Amino acid sequence: MSERIFNFSAGPAALPEPVIRQAQKDLWDIDSSGIGILEHSHRGKVFDKITHETEADCRTVGGISDEYSVFWMQGGATSQCYFVPANFLPSDRTADYFETGKWAQDSIKDCPHYGACHVCASSRDTNFNAIPTPEQTNYSDNPVYVHFTANNTIMGTEFHAEPTAPKGAFLVSDMSSNIFSRPLDVSKYGLIYAGAQKNLGPSGTTLLIGRRDLIENPVRDLPQMMKFSNHAKKEGRFNTPNTFGVYLMGQVFKWILAEGGLKAMQERNDEVAGVLYSFLDSQDFYIPHAQHASRSNMNITFKCPTPELDKAFLVGAGSRGLDGLKGHRSIGGMRASMYNAFPKAGAKALVEFMKTFAHEHAAAAKA
Amino acid sequence: MSERIFNFSAGPAALPEPVIRQAQKDLWDIDSSGIGILEHSHRGKVFDKITHETEADCRTVGGISDEYSVFWMQGGATSQCYFVPANFLPSDRTADYFETGKWAQDSIKDCPHYGACHVCASSRDTNFNAIPTPEQTNYSDNPVYVHFTANNTIMGTEFHAEPTAPKGAFLVSDMSSNIFSRPLDVSKYGLIYAGAQKNLGPSGTTLLIGRRDLIENPVRDLPQMMKFSNHAKKEGRFNTPNTFGVYLMGQVFKWILAEGGLKAMQERNDEVAGVLYSFLDSQDFYIPHAQHASRSNMNITFKCPTPELDKAFLVGAGSRGLDGLKGHRSIGGMRASMYNAFPKAGAKALVEFMKTFAHEHAAAAKA
Repeated sequence: MSERIFNFSAGPAALPEPVIRQAQKDLWDIDSSGIGILEHSHRGKVFDKITHETEADCRTVGGISDEYSVFWMQGGATSQCYFVPANFLPSDRTADYFETGKWAQDSIKDCPHYGACHVCASSRDTNFNAIPTPEQTNYSDNPVYVHFTANNTIMGTEFHAEPTAPKGAFLVSDMSSNIFSRPLDVSKYGLIYAGAQKNLGPSGTTLLIGRRDLIENPVRDLPQMMKFSNHAKKEGRFNTPNTFGVYLMGQVFKWILAEGGLKAMQERNDEVAGVLYSFLDSQDFYIPHAQHASRSNMNITFKCPTPELDKAFLVGAGSRGLDGLKGHRSIGGMRASMYNAFPKAGAKALVEFMKTFAHEHAAAAKA
Repeated sequence: MSERIFNFSAGPAALPEPVIRQAQKDLWDIDSSGIGILEHSHRGKVFDKITHETEADCRTVGGISDEYSVFWMQGGATSQCYFVPANFLPSDRTADYFETGKWAQDSIKDCPHYGACHVCASSRDTNFNAIPTPEQTNYSDNPVYVHFTANNTIMGTEFHAEPTAPKGAFLVSDMSSNIFSRPLDVSKYGLIYAGAQKNLGPSGTTLLIGRRDLIENPVRDLPQMMKFSNHAKKEGRFNTPNTFGVYLMGQVFKWILAEGGLKAMQERNDEVAGVLYSFLDSQDFYIPHAQHASRSNMNITFKCPTPELDKAFLVGAGSRGLDGLKGHRSIGGMRASMYNAFPKAGAKALVEFMKTFAHEHAAAAKA
């Protein structure tokens, strides 16, 4: 078996190795059915079992009550930018959005196709290096819902607690990049959605957790595939789902449970991110992007003193098997994405390299 | 390595075994990158290469000129039911649709959200057992496009040649279940779309082949993920695609090319379907559903003389490793789906069982 390197990719991202090993077997023949996982009908018994187990395990992991539907869609979180207002926002009402980065802006862009969009808080003026505080937040008069991006992969910021929606409004959150990275109180939300490709599995599947009373009836007549209710009622099988994506998400849930659930995930992530953050806090060569109180446990963003050194850093890291560290073009520098499955050894190896690199280039940087 | 059985599933369906074997390896580490295919960024070099090769191989397989964009979306063919009219049909114009089964009906259902829908021909009166002839087709005055489902998985019927659209209109086809099963003249079409899970790979990826001048500008302002142009311009990577689906489709294209391309696929499919059709034509126990001139080379539908015998047939077939033969609930009976990757040995094994079963039950059926 060939050697694997440390994959700091922001997503698709590193998966738990036991999950990959299981998938390798199941690709050829799953459950001794004589048929591989990719080739099973989404209406057959083998996939029935996968769907039901994946949903049940998701409920166990997230402590999700029966008041909520758990289901899957396709098209990534970016498709939810229009599914959400299409289903929830009447044309004469307003929804409030936190503007905390590119993904939030994508949602803000699509909302006006369906109703009024009010930006209730924004950190655009400081290139999204912070999460707005309650004092910085101004809700509209009577919003239908409040939308926020729980973790901002590009900027490396994260809501450490959900905002409190005004009375009568419900919370909608894009949790693509931090879902199930820590304990979560689903009962505070109307809808949670998450593209799978960071903490939950491969790309091409979106997990939805929605309050049944809210998703039951869209506020307008919609094409069949746009209605949350159709997907929820049919267990994510209104049409042919990404069967492999649902299967693999199920394997990831089993792995989370075996590791000890969300509390264990949080401890693990605190520890892994802690390796990098405590180093960053102890030095003055690298410049972190996110403000201290807003920094993400999933994506850690920093720069060298000059763009030339950023380039040299990425080349040096790559040659040491530290891959996927290049920051998003909108902020440059570096980004270390370390989701649930990322090993602590990778964070340690990165810090070791950061020390060496800083030592070698500190003089040049000050010259 | 465990034994695999004959998988007659209508989709997700049997894949070429060399493709599965390659995927098993690439799941752990692809191209000696030290990272598995599921874990690579869709913006990284490894996936760049996969995207470009998959597109290039698709163009070679289908003989697709640069006048057309080749790209991928999510949400299956069912999402195209609204994407197509949303992008192409102005609210004051009409599109013509062939009604040849459930998938066609799904398209007809969503079209009126955007413009007028005219059913130009229908075989509903005979439970969709035939493809309408040109004489049975009545186009509207000046349709924008003509939509047809190239192969009807449920009923087992297939257009053996594309309809001729009236002057000024372009053809749109849902080719989910017969794309690349035989040579294809793409230049006759405005848009071809196909869910991958029959002839092209796993579920969760839709291949689109669209004339650039038609998809460039949607006829109305749309949410970002609904615009064909956004997906086409970004090589199917407007947002995170189903990377594994695109990868596997690429592997299937390489397999098609290695097998000799679409001409070889047609010969292969003629031969495999021929095994079953020539048996059906030679006997009077089983009752085929599709009319002779309309029958599909991909999905073959038939019944026993009674529903009780259908049940017994399915049990007996299952116990002999012939899986996935149950017909769709809307017509009952049996359906043998045999796409490009289905082995001739499976068709022969099915016919052997059909002979035995008919022999054993012929007397009972006549009683």
